[in-house]
Amino acid sequence: MAADENELMSNSKEITYTARVEFGDCDPAGIVWFPNFFRWIDAASRHFFAECGVPRWEETARTLGVIGTPLVDTHTRFVKAASYGDTLQIAVRIAEWRDKSFVQTYRVLRGDELILECEEVRIFAAKREGGGIRAVPIPPTIRALCD
Amino acid sequence: MAADENELMSNSKEITYTARVEFGDCDPAGIVWFPNFFRWIDAASRHFFAECGVPRWEETARTLGVIGTPLVDTHTRFVKAASYGDTLQIAVRIAEWRDKSFVQTYRVLRGDELILECEEVRIFAAKREGGGIRAVPIPPTIRALCD
Amino acid sequence: MAADENELMSNSKEITYTARVEFGDCDPAGIVWFPNFFRWIDAASRHFFAECGVPRWEETARTLGVIGTPLVDTHTRFVKAASYGDTLQIAVRIAEWRDKSFVQTYRVLRGDELILECEEVRIFAAKREGGGIRAVPIPPTIRALCD
Amino acid sequence: MAADENELMSNSKEITYTARVEFGDCDPAGIVWFPNFFRWIDAASRHFFAECGVPRWEETARTLGVIGTPLVDTHTRFVKAASYGDTLQIAVRIAEWRDKSFVQTYRVLRGDELILECEEVRIFAAKREGGGIRAVPIPPTIRALCD
Repeated sequence: MAADENELMSNSKEITYTARVEFGDCDPAGIVWFPNFFRWIDAASRHFFAECGVPRWEETARTLGVIGTPLVDTHTRFVKAASYGDTLQIAVRIAEWRDKSFVQTYRVLRGDELILECEEVRIFAAKREGGGIRAVPIPPTIRALCD
Repeated sequence: MAADENELMSNSKEITYTARVEFGDCDPAGIVWFPNFFRWIDAASRHFFAECGVPRWEETARTLGVIGTPLVDTHTRFVKAASYGDTLQIAVRIAEWRDKSFVQTYRVLRGDELILECEEVRIFAAKREGGGIRAVPIPPTIRALCD
Repeated sequence: MAADENELMSNSKEITYTARVEFGDCDPAGIVWFPNFFRWIDAASRHFFAECGVPRWEETARTLGVIGTPLVDTHTRFVKAASYGDTLQIAVRIAEWRDKSFVQTYRVLRGDELILECEEVRIFAAKREGGGIRAVPIPPTIRALCD
Repeated sequence: MAADENELMSNSKEITYTARVEFGDCDPAGIVWFPNFFRWIDAASRHFFAECGVPRWEETARTLGVIGTPLVDTHTRFVKAASYGDTLQIAVRIAEWRDKSFVQTYRVLRGDELILECEEVRIFAAKREGGGIRAVPIPPTIRALCD
């Protein structure tokens, strides 16, 4: 990692989302069934934008044409298992802004223990005529709220 | 990719799992909410073992101490959105056996269109005394069924 | 149950939806975590309409203002547990049409064994100005397809 | 409701569970997809027992043979839709103890607005030899904690 990038990251906003692990989030092995981690990560992603002051996607759909931030890439490393009764803290930030995408990262902790790390690429999406979605350039008003 | 690796992969079993996308799998943007893709991928993973003749995890727990194949790493690239009414074919195989882990890969298709690609590292897990789980060496009887 | 009602029911369409129970659908007790049954029931509900020829809700939104069939009441009796590897057949029909709602019923079977029975009241919903949804009268074109 | 029943209910413990509605909990109509309400209701059910001092089901499995409280009947009335950004308060209590089952009730509120009401019958379950589960008499130690 280059020095500039380090600096960028150390200056970026970090916001924490809290998730409780419930009985029904666990599988027959008694541990969190992994798709549920992505449920919490997705909630943490939107929580980040909400805390930065970005309005609901219905509103950005009207004002900016943006209907959400779909995922285009995720790389996730699971370090420890979790189970029901656990409370997880998910530290989330935007590590990098690109032209038509951004990198959002997550560290999921149970107290001091690292449970997982995740690095995602997401886009701001608009509806495509005839169905489907397409990436739009990062809306400057949203970026300004998040930086 | 080196020639040897190509050869290894072309010789490995490939099994297909079919998933239907339902209305409730989609989010307010009208497309599949991404954690549901991991639900289908996890089902495809176990389907692979079931089709190879590996018994239910309750039985392997008794015979081998193995309670399942938890995920330790996933790298997933989302190429196209899907929506309800779509039928997805998930081609799954084991790309590599390591000492205490294995690489399982997935291609999710809608007809000829690539929807996503996923590469996972999973382990065979046993219960750890005092709680939690631990990786065990690849059970030769399971590997023999899957090769 | 009155004679007329019996007759009505015996004449109504019955359509079957098939669901496979996956490992991740089960909880630490090793049986299906019950909210997943409602996932399959909801899929069976829309499957019923799709099989009758009712188009996707985006299309009915344009043609009829109908965005879906939200639930207003469910009464569900769980008879037997199910677990992963099971294949469930869900027989669904519309037991009664009311002015602004309808009764949809489900029998979930594993082979000959009854797993659960469910009776729902649903509405055809339109967007309400200012947010939220409201019930609309049963669209005759939809009813004609389903009878 | 008879006077006696009123009295019984007014004396029973009521505990509140809080759920946030997330983007991914909502369907293409933009409102909570109903199976997610049952996810929160199930979490509220166990939260009730946890708050009363009942230990994790792994521990009751060892001490009492009880592996959980599966649902045998639910009757749920949906009054208003909810959407992401909403915070829901779920007031839960045990309305009635029977020999081998109990009635647990829920009122889901968003501020002062009633979103749904739910009445369930649940059992305390033990593993049945040869697979499956069976109801056991209400464990007096658990009832004493909850009354």
